[in-house]
Amino acid sequence: MHIEIQRNADVSITKQIYLSILDHIRSDLLEEELQLPSVRELSKQLGVSLVTVVKAYQKLEQDGFITSVQGKGTFIRKIKMEETESKKGTNSYDWQLSVQDYLPRSQFARFHQVPEKIHLSSSMIDPGLLPNRYLEQEIHKMLSENPKVLSQYGEIQGDKALRQAMVEYLQRMDLPTSPDNILVTSGSQQGIDLIARTFVGPGDVVVMEAPTYPGAIDVFRGRGATILTIPVDSDGMRVDLLHNLCDKYKPKIIYTVPTFHNPTGAVMPTKRRRQILEIAKSTQCLVIEDDPCSEIYFERKPPASMKSLDKDGHVIYLKGLSKILAPGCRIGILATSGSIFKRLLAAKANTDLGSPLLTQKAIIPFITSKRMMDHLKKLRTALKIRCDLVLEILSQHAPEEVSWFIPKGGLNVWLTLPSWINTDHLLIEAKKEQITFLPGSACYPTEQENHHLRLSFSYMNEQQLTQGVTTICNLLKSAIDLKIYQDSSPHF
Amino acid sequence: MHIEIQRNADVSITKQIYLSILDHIRSDLLEEELQLPSVRELSKQLGVSLVTVVKAYQKLEQDGFITSVQGKGTFIRKIKMEETESKKGTNSYDWQLSVQDYLPRSQFARFHQVPEKIHLSSSMIDPGLLPNRYLEQEIHKMLSENPKVLSQYGEIQGDKALRQAMVEYLQRMDLPTSPDNILVTSGSQQGIDLIARTFVGPGDVVVMEAPTYPGAIDVFRGRGATILTIPVDSDGMRVDLLHNLCDKYKPKIIYTVPTFHNPTGAVMPTKRRRQILEIAKSTQCLVIEDDPCSEIYFERKPPASMKSLDKDGHVIYLKGLSKILAPGCRIGILATSGSIFKRLLAAKANTDLGSPLLTQKAIIPFITSKRMMDHLKKLRTALKIRCDLVLEILSQHAPEEVSWFIPKGGLNVWLTLPSWINTDHLLIEAKKEQITFLPGSACYPTEQENHHLRLSFSYMNEQQLTQGVTTICNLLKSAIDLKIYQDSSPHF
Repeated sequence: MHIEIQRNADVSITKQIYLSILDHIRSDLLEEELQLPSVRELSKQLGVSLVTVVKAYQKLEQDGFITSVQGKGTFIRKIKMEETESKKGTNSYDWQLSVQDYLPRSQFARFHQVPEKIHLSSSMIDPGLLPNRYLEQEIHKMLSENPKVLSQYGEIQGDKALRQAMVEYLQRMDLPTSPDNILVTSGSQQGIDLIARTFVGPGDVVVMEAPTYPGAIDVFRGRGATILTIPVDSDGMRVDLLHNLCDKYKPKIIYTVPTFHNPTGAVMPTKRRRQILEIAKSTQCLVIEDDPCSEIYFERKPPASMKSLDKDGHVIYLKGLSKILAPGCRIGILATSGSIFKRLLAAKANTDLGSPLLTQKAIIPFITSKRMMDHLKKLRTALKIRCDLVLEILSQHAPEEVSWFIPKGGLNVWLTLPSWINTDHLLIEAKKEQITFLPGSACYPTEQENHHLRLSFSYMNEQQLTQGVTTICNLLKSAIDLKIYQDSSPHF
Repeated sequence: MHIEIQRNADVSITKQIYLSILDHIRSDLLEEELQLPSVRELSKQLGVSLVTVVKAYQKLEQDGFITSVQGKGTFIRKIKMEETESKKGTNSYDWQLSVQDYLPRSQFARFHQVPEKIHLSSSMIDPGLLPNRYLEQEIHKMLSENPKVLSQYGEIQGDKALRQAMVEYLQRMDLPTSPDNILVTSGSQQGIDLIARTFVGPGDVVVMEAPTYPGAIDVFRGRGATILTIPVDSDGMRVDLLHNLCDKYKPKIIYTVPTFHNPTGAVMPTKRRRQILEIAKSTQCLVIEDDPCSEIYFERKPPASMKSLDKDGHVIYLKGLSKILAPGCRIGILATSGSIFKRLLAAKANTDLGSPLLTQKAIIPFITSKRMMDHLKKLRTALKIRCDLVLEILSQHAPEEVSWFIPKGGLNVWLTLPSWINTDHLLIEAKKEQITFLPGSACYPTEQENHHLRLSFSYMNEQQLTQGVTTICNLLKSAIDLKIYQDSSPHF
């Protein structure tokens, strides 16, 4: 268990220890009944006072995450968390527990793949909405003509034809770039990870939206970053607060999802985009513009990407294709320039020597065909119908204490509940009905807010959506009526 | 430019600075004519004396890697290195140079993919020796039956059917394991990287063979590890030296390629494998057993894997398939158990949310068929013929001052030249003849030996091998006769 203490942070050390252990539990990295280090051991390991550790353990026990057994020690207790999917290792070697790791958090994985019947927790696309049959035919044709694709490494930077195809694709989104400035990645998750491993180290400051994409939090936490957060309103990141923060803390990276923000769905107007670029310029920092799904707009095209407004090489643009085309290929790209690009390319080489050539070649014929644009059009329509359905059910069935953003695109609806409800607890009940959603706690890098949840409407069909969202509304009603699932989040 | 100084290392700080800058140049991370920080700046940044930096710069200048211009500063000078393939960025933003990175080295990429006519520098397999047509037919069949493979994320741990298939495959290699203990990776490069990011941090001790696989050096250096080396003889790692080293320095990880060691081709006997396991047990450290090509034996099957001898969960076994089946799919696996496995799985989630499903499903029918074993048999025969050819040419044409290991399998021959020859310089001449090889310098984690080179015989056909190896022999003859390509490696 790796606990990183930041002595000059605004968060007290007691709370840092509390949150770090909670992150480990939530990431399923500490198994039920596992013994924690003694207060003495942990205080020595972290170089903090005994009292600080005692307070953190007391709060964890009070909140039901650990149990102290007189004369025996302190143990993990998971009953207040949702039930874990992991089997207990039949072969757990005790000595391995002494091997320290650098893995403070890995929460997103738990929600990304779950066997529940009604899966509203991750924003995957219903396979029925993707052009599998066409793709399959194109792949057959490509491999018949050139079977050696199977026996060759691609270029580390990515297949040249795919990079060219992506340049044309991005051009249609009014984002001019060149094949030399494109790096093919294994999804945008890898893009985030490449940037973090290259430019972020212990104590480097990363600014994130709160809430934000949990998979990005996992990555930056893993690099020991000091994460500072900026709240989000209906126009995305509160840029008015960013100025002061950047002046004071000199961030190395600002991570943002400006279009159909994850998880809220907010769209950042051009003015704010430009303001962030100005701040990046004056503080000489990098901006990660994560763009998972700007193609999925319901009314009008969203504003131009920040990358297209950037004249000085500050923006690293990430475009994943898994939300619109072929998640089974896991293709994403990263676009940036100058020495930043060159260093990311070196990191990609160290990581995996380049993405598989097969998956890259597989999608080229489709994305360069006219069908791609037709497909996106149909996808927008289909997802808008599902989104409207969810909004309709919410209007009819959600208790009046619940509010939500009305998304203008994307794959999610973000709900805000009364502040005393903890959606971690609500999720346990939902799972009993074979329904999952993403609890708000996973989306906050530092100070958690537990009274939100994200519903993804992209994976389930209309019948499943109706059943799932109605059931969640009913659970919320009971919760509010009976005052259950009360929050016990840390107040130090 | 990130220079990591280790104050308690055996290597002087001057030399650490020298080697670190050289690593950046060799990784193509410092462009020609780029200005280095002034002596004053660098000494301040690293917290070392001015004299220390002056000495390192003097040595770099003396060896021809940098130039000082009176009143202007110190600049990178690449003429003594091989010519670089990179184009100079048309859009290099000066401010970007102030963005510090955590990327000390990325050398392997330079040799992994090069456009030279006679490519002896990386141990890729001739596509003509791989079963592309069969694979293509199987993929067609699989996708026709189940096109949704294209539209689904696989499990983060890897597709269950592939994990099961790999269990059966490993069973035939006398390595019993279970699908729960297998993690599918994007080649074994990603396996090494996952282990490093999870368990290695600044100052953690990693023991490596010297020489060793350059791609692994790049990864561990990137984590700020203190790398200690053990020399290799014809039985692989000198285990007699490992004992003392481990007693003194308590490594966290021992990285080894016990079977057809890269680059020398040595095979470690069972006795040494057991000794390493004993040492791992007594020091509670992890062992990475990297197995790129134990299937490619020329006489008899190599000894049982270390993993199969390990009863206590110390070994993390890496099996890449890119050397034997379909590099275009980039499939590898990692096998280990207990909490070590669980933590690596979490790291995989953070990195890329799992390997693409398409490439995993693509190879299952072939590796579970009888054809797989027939294919390996043919591959062994074909590669033995090529290896014998190279050895034959060397016996006939290499100067008597040159010696080499006779490989019992694998893809490479390792040559040792008179100690005053620097193969970095020889490579420049070879490239003029459109021939590449891997210079020894890339294979040493710390103290470099420049008078070795690795020839890979797996990618070129017999005619190309004949031409390439004969030409290298002739270059060596001239070098020895004329006493050129003299080494100027650091003697502090």
